[in-house]
Amino acid sequence: MNFVGENILSVSQFSRSDIDHLFLVAEKMIPFANREKVTRVLEGAILGNMFFEPSTRTRVSFGCAWNLLGGEVRETTEIKASSLSKGESFYDTARVLSGYSDVIVMRHEQEGSVSEFAEASRVPVVNGGDGANEHPSQALLDLYTIRQEMKSQRKQVDGLRIALIGDLRHGRAVHSLCKLLTLYENIHFTLISPRDLGLPQKYIAEIKARGHAADEMEDLTSGIANADIIYMTRTQEERFSSQEQANRYRGLLRLNQSIYTEFCQPNTVIMHPLPRDSRGEAQELDEDLNENPNLAIFRQTDNGVVIRMALFALILNVADQIEASSRDVNWYTQGRFDG
Amino acid sequence: MNFVGENILSVSQFSRSDIDHLFLVAEKMIPFANREKVTRVLEGAILGNMFFEPSTRTRVSFGCAWNLLGGEVRETTEIKASSLSKGESFYDTARVLSGYSDVIVMRHEQEGSVSEFAEASRVPVVNGGDGANEHPSQALLDLYTIRQEMKSQRKQVDGLRIALIGDLRHGRAVHSLCKLLTLYENIHFTLISPRDLGLPQKYIAEIKARGHAADEMEDLTSGIANADIIYMTRTQEERFSSQEQANRYRGLLRLNQSIYTEFCQPNTVIMHPLPRDSRGEAQELDEDLNENPNLAIFRQTDNGVVIRMALFALILNVADQIEASSRDVNWYTQGRFDG
Amino acid sequence: MNFVGENILSVSQFSRSDIDHLFLVAEKMIPFANREKVTRVLEGAILGNMFFEPSTRTRVSFGCAWNLLGGEVRETTEIKASSLSKGESFYDTARVLSGYSDVIVMRHEQEGSVSEFAEASRVPVVNGGDGANEHPSQALLDLYTIRQEMKSQRKQVDGLRIALIGDLRHGRAVHSLCKLLTLYENIHFTLISPRDLGLPQKYIAEIKARGHAADEMEDLTSGIANADIIYMTRTQEERFSSQEQANRYRGLLRLNQSIYTEFCQPNTVIMHPLPRDSRGEAQELDEDLNENPNLAIFRQTDNGVVIRMALFALILNVADQIEASSRDVNWYTQGRFDG
Repeated sequence: MNFVGENILSVSQFSRSDIDHLFLVAEKMIPFANREKVTRVLEGAILGNMFFEPSTRTRVSFGCAWNLLGGEVRETTEIKASSLSKGESFYDTARVLSGYSDVIVMRHEQEGSVSEFAEASRVPVVNGGDGANEHPSQALLDLYTIRQEMKSQRKQVDGLRIALIGDLRHGRAVHSLCKLLTLYENIHFTLISPRDLGLPQKYIAEIKARGHAADEMEDLTSGIANADIIYMTRTQEERFSSQEQANRYRGLLRLNQSIYTEFCQPNTVIMHPLPRDSRGEAQELDEDLNENPNLAIFRQTDNGVVIRMALFALILNVADQIEASSRDVNWYTQGRFDG
Repeated sequence: MNFVGENILSVSQFSRSDIDHLFLVAEKMIPFANREKVTRVLEGAILGNMFFEPSTRTRVSFGCAWNLLGGEVRETTEIKASSLSKGESFYDTARVLSGYSDVIVMRHEQEGSVSEFAEASRVPVVNGGDGANEHPSQALLDLYTIRQEMKSQRKQVDGLRIALIGDLRHGRAVHSLCKLLTLYENIHFTLISPRDLGLPQKYIAEIKARGHAADEMEDLTSGIANADIIYMTRTQEERFSSQEQANRYRGLLRLNQSIYTEFCQPNTVIMHPLPRDSRGEAQELDEDLNENPNLAIFRQTDNGVVIRMALFALILNVADQIEASSRDVNWYTQGRFDG
Repeated sequence: MNFVGENILSVSQFSRSDIDHLFLVAEKMIPFANREKVTRVLEGAILGNMFFEPSTRTRVSFGCAWNLLGGEVRETTEIKASSLSKGESFYDTARVLSGYSDVIVMRHEQEGSVSEFAEASRVPVVNGGDGANEHPSQALLDLYTIRQEMKSQRKQVDGLRIALIGDLRHGRAVHSLCKLLTLYENIHFTLISPRDLGLPQKYIAEIKARGHAADEMEDLTSGIANADIIYMTRTQEERFSSQEQANRYRGLLRLNQSIYTEFCQPNTVIMHPLPRDSRGEAQELDEDLNENPNLAIFRQTDNGVVIRMALFALILNVADQIEASSRDVNWYTQGRFDG
């Protein structure tokens, strides 16, 4: 993969060396995300941040990454105001919007919509989530977080033991992360979920086909004992046929500090694609974990910024220009970046 | 018309020499819209992009045009969040918002609202569409497209044969375009519409009063035979009293490649103000025309950017500074501009 | 108060010398707000303009202030698209969003929400309004306006006679302004409201405890006779249990030009936190006052920009760098700033 001028639609596009390259660039972005340095390398460039499905976090993260490279953002935040709601095709929408920007990030609830859009777009398109299908930048930031966390423990991703917990059936973040992890060597997946919410068989088959191990179970405590990484997820309630159907699973699998202390290794890293559900009945990750230094969930979201910066810099072929165009930040800032 | 510091509220403001001047400036904007060059001439200037009626395309096009000149955009995307919904007058809204920006683009569903707003504004106001009344930048980009298309065929706008097709009663784009075309010489209008959706009599009277020809008919194929330009429109369904009323007209007038091949001149240019309705029952412009090089609908939207850049540059009197403040684009870009 | 790196959550944070300092910086911002000069001191900095409750005016004012300092704005405009609506805690939202920006402005309908958010944020947070609780930048711009208006009459804030009129029970702007005014000497408050909508007793107690005078009354004309400032408010209809409850008070207290002429001192300044309700039944400030030079309501909103610029500049410790990084505006502008 060359990155320059390419669409980012699926984690399937990435080889291991692509990922190594991306992560190398991402690390160079840390001083900018951490507000130590400023670059204006994309000054004058425009991002079309087209979110036809509501989102605050992912939308702002992409926009922020672009701004940190010096570019401007034009955006939309819902489908109802758009021509798509008047019967316009993705083809037309793409042809039109790609006249307005240098890169487009698109989110739409319909599976495959972003690929269809990208075919007609005259500028590179990044998939910001197309329904239950793909959300590649989330999987890349998750993998990058795993790598950084392991690195700080002087471990590698190869040989990783990861426990994936919760609604493994609907979570696209989990699906994509599994795919990416199979590019490494000798990964041990522990898949912990209610019986009906297990990881779809095709992902398990792919894991095993590439020589990794996968154990399925319903019990949390036995599954997390040897994990390097715990990857907890919320129930994807919006994917169920009714709220009642979803409620049956709320709160079934919960991690808190006492369970962690009793059953986990002392350095086990806790991840979550966020948002975590903090309502009393849910609490898949208890707030008493907030002071646990192994809770990496906010390092994940911080890492989202550098991953997205790296994607943009590679697509637009400016990664090599950033260093030369950078200067120190001149305003008050505390080095708060967790990533 | 001097442009500097003026409001752009109606196509009636423009003389033919104003339009010539505007289009000359618009052509100078092409290298910027086409991402060959960057200018920062409006660095530090703020556009108030006030869309009190939903819109993605027009809103983003204006914002993009401003960004391409180097300025910042603050915007709003609906009326429900605004003080207008708490009983505030346009006078107050205008007095307040004009303290926040250097130019305001305003869209509001109420006819005449933008003019009322502009009277109280302390900065120049551009009408981004006030209900069924006016949307001058759309008409200007349509006329500019006609000029550019004719130019590439070594023809002039004078003597043009244009077929206007569809809901000619409600389409403000059509109304404003007719007005602008009457500024030229010897235009032949063929007006093709269902009987109840004909061009209002006042526009026909104006066309004839200025010495142009206008034929009304209901049949598509006989009307398009000698046209230089086919300007197709969608049924403005939102202007009908009910969806049932609107549905009576859906799909009555359709153009596709086989009709085009059989009945049109080989160079006939196809335009549409977009969005076109791609749902099965509608399809006023079939997707099999997408590969037809005379389909100019995306050149139209691209031209919207340069027209809006030119309007801003003239209103703020910076057109002459752009050349000096420009530099080459430093990121990956393919020359994709269709306009 | 040091300002640098601090949250701005409540007017209670400010001493009189803090306010003097803030207002000194605010005055230096006038040439920028008035588009005489441009500064890029915050070029590369990002504001997270997080409005989880609809707002156009305050949101755009904050965004504009940030842009005028050279920074970029990422924003959200409603709660329904946010993770908060999926059960996410303010703690999580704050930890995540504070990885995306250098300062966050937050509005949320829930009282105390912004403080809770600020505790978890890794960057300074400015309260943009938390329900009926606080909206400190509004109170600061009101006080700044009073100071500027008195200054132009060669008077001081000390010794001020102010008539507060309307729904004094629910208006957070009034509550916060009263608090700030108590920092000065010898203020005379005339509190004019319907019986049930009087200023809550705790504010009256505070006024008196600090040695100021407070008279309560229901009649408008007798209360405004000696006022330096009339501060009129609209009925906060959204705080009533039903529209019927609110309607009982609509239009009870109205000021128009003939009342002004008959009962006020010739230089009495008229203020209002806006929006004013221009519907026939309400009209707490009649439009026939629009030509009255003492109507300061649009100078208030203009002052909002310089106050917010000053807050940002102080929080980020760049106030001293602005002068050196400034240049003249190069585009057409009329000196329209009223503040």
